[in-house]
Amino acid sequence: MAVNRMLSKNTLKFIKSLHQKKFRKQEGAFFVEGTKIVTELLQSDFEITHLLFTSKFGDIHSSLIKRHKDIAYEVSVATLESLGEFKTNETVLAVAKTKPNNPILPSADEWIIALDDVRDPGNLGTIIRIADWYGIQKLVLSLESADYYNPKVLHASMGSFTRVSVYYTELLPFLQDLKRPVYGAFLDGKSIYQSSPDKAGVILMGNESNGISQGLNKAVTDRITIPRFGHAESLNVAVATAIICDNIKRQS
Amino acid sequence: MAVNRMLSKNTLKFIKSLHQKKFRKQEGAFFVEGTKIVTELLQSDFEITHLLFTSKFGDIHSSLIKRHKDIAYEVSVATLESLGEFKTNETVLAVAKTKPNNPILPSADEWIIALDDVRDPGNLGTIIRIADWYGIQKLVLSLESADYYNPKVLHASMGSFTRVSVYYTELLPFLQDLKRPVYGAFLDGKSIYQSSPDKAGVILMGNESNGISQGLNKAVTDRITIPRFGHAESLNVAVATAIICDNIKRQS
Repeated sequence: MAVNRMLSKNTLKFIKSLHQKKFRKQEGAFFVEGTKIVTELLQSDFEITHLLFTSKFGDIHSSLIKRHKDIAYEVSVATLESLGEFKTNETVLAVAKTKPNNPILPSADEWIIALDDVRDPGNLGTIIRIADWYGIQKLVLSLESADYYNPKVLHASMGSFTRVSVYYTELLPFLQDLKRPVYGAFLDGKSIYQSSPDKAGVILMGNESNGISQGLNKAVTDRITIPRFGHAESLNVAVATAIICDNIKRQS
Repeated sequence: MAVNRMLSKNTLKFIKSLHQKKFRKQEGAFFVEGTKIVTELLQSDFEITHLLFTSKFGDIHSSLIKRHKDIAYEVSVATLESLGEFKTNETVLAVAKTKPNNPILPSADEWIIALDDVRDPGNLGTIIRIADWYGIQKLVLSLESADYYNPKVLHASMGSFTRVSVYYTELLPFLQDLKRPVYGAFLDGKSIYQSSPDKAGVILMGNESNGISQGLNKAVTDRITIPRFGHAESLNVAVATAIICDNIKRQS
C-alpha cells in the first residue's frame, strides 16, 4: 500500500488512553477493532478520525484504504495489538468521535429499552445487538450503567451499536415525562405469555444483581415475568431482554 | 472456627492444576468459587473432596463447616485468591469429583439441547442456566465443545450445572440413533412463530462463527429460525437458545 504516514507518539498515547472512560469522555472519542466491526463503522454516520491497518489488511482491502487515505495509517501487527483490547489483531483498528448525549424521543408506535444500572459491558453489548435484531433503535440508560463506548460493549454488540441510539439520563423523571406503558421485568410479575402487549412502550430491565431499583417502581405500569419451567433462580439480563423483546414483537 | 488442618503443598498444586482441562480430565476433579455456587454444589449429588474457606466465611456459616469438617480447611484470603479464577474471593472454594461421561437417554416427553462446537465457556455456562430455567435437564455436546467443568462455564451457569446432565459424544450418530425430531437453528429456516412444536425432541445449536456443521444437516428434521425485525446479522448463540426454548416451552 502507498500509505506511509507515521503515527506520532502523541497519537499512539491518545489511542491508548481511550481504554479508559475518563479519557473517552474528555476526548470525545472511542476505538473499535477487527474487520467486521470496523467495516460497519465505516458504513455508519460516525465520524472516523484514524484508520490503523496492517499491510495484510491493506492488500485485501486496498480500495477501502484508498477511499479513506486521509485518515489511514499502515502499522505493524505489534503496534495494533499494543493499542487495542484484542490479544491478536492482524487487521484493523479505527478511532471515531462519540456522539453527543441527545435526549431520545420515541415516536408514537415505537418500543424502546431502558436499562437501570446494567453494569457488565458484555451484557450491555449483547442487549444492543438484541435491540438491533428486534428493530428497537433507542436505548435509555441510567447514569450508573456501563459506558456505551467501552470497547467490550462495542465488541459484544457486533456492530449493532452503529444502528442504535443511546441516551444516558436519570430514569425516573425520563419515564414519568414520557407517559407511555413501562414494562418492568420482575421475578414475580404477570406472565409475558398472558398479556397482549401495547403497541408501543418501554421495556425496563434492572441491574444484574439487584434488579429494578425501588425508586423506579412508581414509573412501572406493567410488572412482567418470564415463566419458569425448571429451577434456575434467574436468567442473565441480556437473555431476559431478548425473551421479552421476542414476546412483545411476536404479538405486535 | 475449630478447623485448623493444614493444606499440603501437593494439594495446593493439585487445585491449581484444575484450571487446565488436561488435569481436570486426568484427576477427575474440578473447582468452583463463591458462596452461592458452592452452596448449590453442597446441596447436589456431586462428591466434594475439599472445602476451603476464610475465617470470615467460617464465622457466618459455622454449622455448614461443622457438617463438612472432614473436608474443610480454613485458609487465608490470599491463598484462596491464588487458587481460583476470581480476582477477589473472601469466602469459599470447593473441589469436587467430575461425573462419568454417561450416555443420555431422554424420556418420551422430554426436550434436550444439543450443542455443535459451542466453544465459548461463557456461552456454554449461560446455556446451562437457560436449560435449567426452562426445565431442560439434559445436554449433549459435540467433542469440540467447551469443557463443562471449565470454571468459567460453571460460574456462568450460576449453579445450574448441578441440575443438568451432560454427555460428550459425536453428534451425528447420537442424533440418528435417537430417532426424534431435531430442530436445528439456522438463519434461513422456518419461523419459530409459525410452527407448533412437537411434544419432545432436540434443540440443536451451532458454533458461534459457523453455525451447525454441514455434516450434521442430515440429522436435522426441522430447520427453524428466529424472526428478525431489525438489522443485526445474527444473535449470540446463548440468546438464540433462550428464545427457541421459550417458544417451544410456551406452546407445549
